[in-house]
Amino acid sequence: MSDVCANLVSKQFFTFAEPPHELVLESGERLGPVTLAYETMGVLTQDRDNAILVIHALTGDSHVAGCYTKDDARPGWWEIMVGPGKAIDTERYFVICANVLGGCMGSTGPSSLNQVTGKPYGLAFPLLTIGDMVTAQKALIDHLGIPKLLAVVGGSVGGMQVLAWCARYPEMVRAAIPLATTPRHSAQSIAFNEVARQAIMADPHWRGGDYYGGAKPDLGLAVARMIGHITYLSNESMRQKFGRQLKSRDALSFHFDAGFEVESYLRYQGNKFVERFDANSFLYLTKAADYFDLDDYAATTGPAGAFKGSHTSFLVVSFTSDWLYPTEQSRTLVRALKRNGLDVSFCEIQSDWGHDAFLLPSERLHSLVEAFLARVYRENPAGE
Amino acid sequence: MSDVCANLVSKQFFTFAEPPHELVLESGERLGPVTLAYETMGVLTQDRDNAILVIHALTGDSHVAGCYTKDDARPGWWEIMVGPGKAIDTERYFVICANVLGGCMGSTGPSSLNQVTGKPYGLAFPLLTIGDMVTAQKALIDHLGIPKLLAVVGGSVGGMQVLAWCARYPEMVRAAIPLATTPRHSAQSIAFNEVARQAIMADPHWRGGDYYGGAKPDLGLAVARMIGHITYLSNESMRQKFGRQLKSRDALSFHFDAGFEVESYLRYQGNKFVERFDANSFLYLTKAADYFDLDDYAATTGPAGAFKGSHTSFLVVSFTSDWLYPTEQSRTLVRALKRNGLDVSFCEIQSDWGHDAFLLPSERLHSLVEAFLARVYRENPAGE
Repeated sequence: MSDVCANLVSKQFFTFAEPPHELVLESGERLGPVTLAYETMGVLTQDRDNAILVIHALTGDSHVAGCYTKDDARPGWWEIMVGPGKAIDTERYFVICANVLGGCMGSTGPSSLNQVTGKPYGLAFPLLTIGDMVTAQKALIDHLGIPKLLAVVGGSVGGMQVLAWCARYPEMVRAAIPLATTPRHSAQSIAFNEVARQAIMADPHWRGGDYYGGAKPDLGLAVARMIGHITYLSNESMRQKFGRQLKSRDALSFHFDAGFEVESYLRYQGNKFVERFDANSFLYLTKAADYFDLDDYAATTGPAGAFKGSHTSFLVVSFTSDWLYPTEQSRTLVRALKRNGLDVSFCEIQSDWGHDAFLLPSERLHSLVEAFLARVYRENPAGE
Repeated sequence: MSDVCANLVSKQFFTFAEPPHELVLESGERLGPVTLAYETMGVLTQDRDNAILVIHALTGDSHVAGCYTKDDARPGWWEIMVGPGKAIDTERYFVICANVLGGCMGSTGPSSLNQVTGKPYGLAFPLLTIGDMVTAQKALIDHLGIPKLLAVVGGSVGGMQVLAWCARYPEMVRAAIPLATTPRHSAQSIAFNEVARQAIMADPHWRGGDYYGGAKPDLGLAVARMIGHITYLSNESMRQKFGRQLKSRDALSFHFDAGFEVESYLRYQGNKFVERFDANSFLYLTKAADYFDLDDYAATTGPAGAFKGSHTSFLVVSFTSDWLYPTEQSRTLVRALKRNGLDVSFCEIQSDWGHDAFLLPSERLHSLVEAFLARVYRENPAGE
């Protein structure tokens, strides 16, 4: 871990939409004040032309890489990609990562204090969209004095935010890397999210979202996480990881304990998750993902609408075994980008690891991202 | 419904393993007395050579077709396939369908009275296997005086029982039609079942399975059913059925009600299911399906083991969009059958409707089953 811990980072907080201002959300509701927790790595050039916004997936946070203290060995969620000498090289680029609006890792979300009532929001928190998350990130980027991002990078729900950035603020995004993502959820993806939400809301400790200070809906949230986990892995990766291996001995246990390795893995993932994540945030973030439809961000209608007038360069990456957001959904996106005459590179990476592949070491992904960033940085001088 | 209601059927009950006898289960546990609820259609020939055992899937029952009274319009679960002039023609064949052991539709299961305690079994009910279900069906077939079945037919978990029948009692099965099934669950299938079970066990009303007479774990069971439902449909069928259609109006609702059609469909399915099904039965039957491994029924080891010495004719059918038990799993089965030199027909039917396709009208399935049964009935005279 020595090369990781050489990179000290600290969680910082940016608060905006303070009285008398408020953030106006896509729903028309208003929210304020709004805090985003964020971290940065690397140094912004004088030309302010090397900033890369990295956006986390559903349950991630601002801690993309580095460590908080020299003795802190907790890695960031994308150490494989971000750091000195990595594909997103922090010796070259200035990397920003913020916890998403609606999250529970320092940014304003349903577990935050509602200044009107003096109690946590719970379900009084307004429903958010992917666009609202991007609006909040834009305020942070403005605050940091960055006129134009070299790149916006993110996978999964983070990739949706990348797309919304490009549609909303094309003039601020030189390059975009949406990974393992989709322009909109299929009915099946909505269905999985809905069942996960139902599992949370079925937990009596959920109490209509008003559980702060008391027992939490841990059992429901664990089930929700387990459902998600199955969709993040592929059938093949589960076969390789677990097959039909039995946990303790070479015999069926004939009771309802976790007999198969895959069962105990899921239970472990579910139980670990509830320690770090807020159930209401899970509801809000999955709903925002379900609501996302790139066409809603179109200045003009039609499949190319969202990217009308854009000059952003794109690297779109999908993974063969990702059945949550299959390659075909990335191809739909690529076709829309090409119809706008945009500079698009597309790669489907062979991987057995399902949707989660973008978080796992991959030489192919590393070299694609590294080369793409180097090219756009070289080809697009500051201010252009 | 007139041609359906011309076929009156009645639910009958067969009880065996009465004191001093008991049914010895694969786990070594003993169970008794055991009741199977069953229904029959058609007339058994004097040669007793036209009996077809139809086996229902996970949550089905003995009511495969016909109606209980002339005014009763409730259809059976496989009206498309079973009845006069249907593929499984009850003017020609004598059809038997029993509710599975461990079920909750009249057969002995965890909701039945434990004669030792005078209370429902709950989790005191022993864990069952697919083989145990077949053992109970065998007792019923013996009771009905049928020396050899013309065919055993079933889809999904019913198909597993078809395979176990052929492995256990090859001399009693002339022909077998396993549909949309698998010789063993993948880690992913086990994972889905495990999360569904966790959803039930997370419901405080479950009370370790001891909920009879009080509030039932309906919320947990509804979530479990919703998870199952997603796996029974295909991504494509969900797209065709629901797409991203919104329920009430052409706008996002911005709250946690069921906004998308697919959400309200799932909630409806979940709520409807709890009215008719017992949560403990769901636990036991899914566990039996997870435990099933055709190799465990092998007289000799190796991929062909389970069918060593068999002379059964097989019609194996899979469906292109079934991602729960994909075609490749049927092919594995077919290879094992062929290695034993058995008479095997295999067909992968093109369908968008996922795993549930075997329950839906299909001319292809109809003609395959009809022709296969006619051939084996013609080619295998009674007593041979």
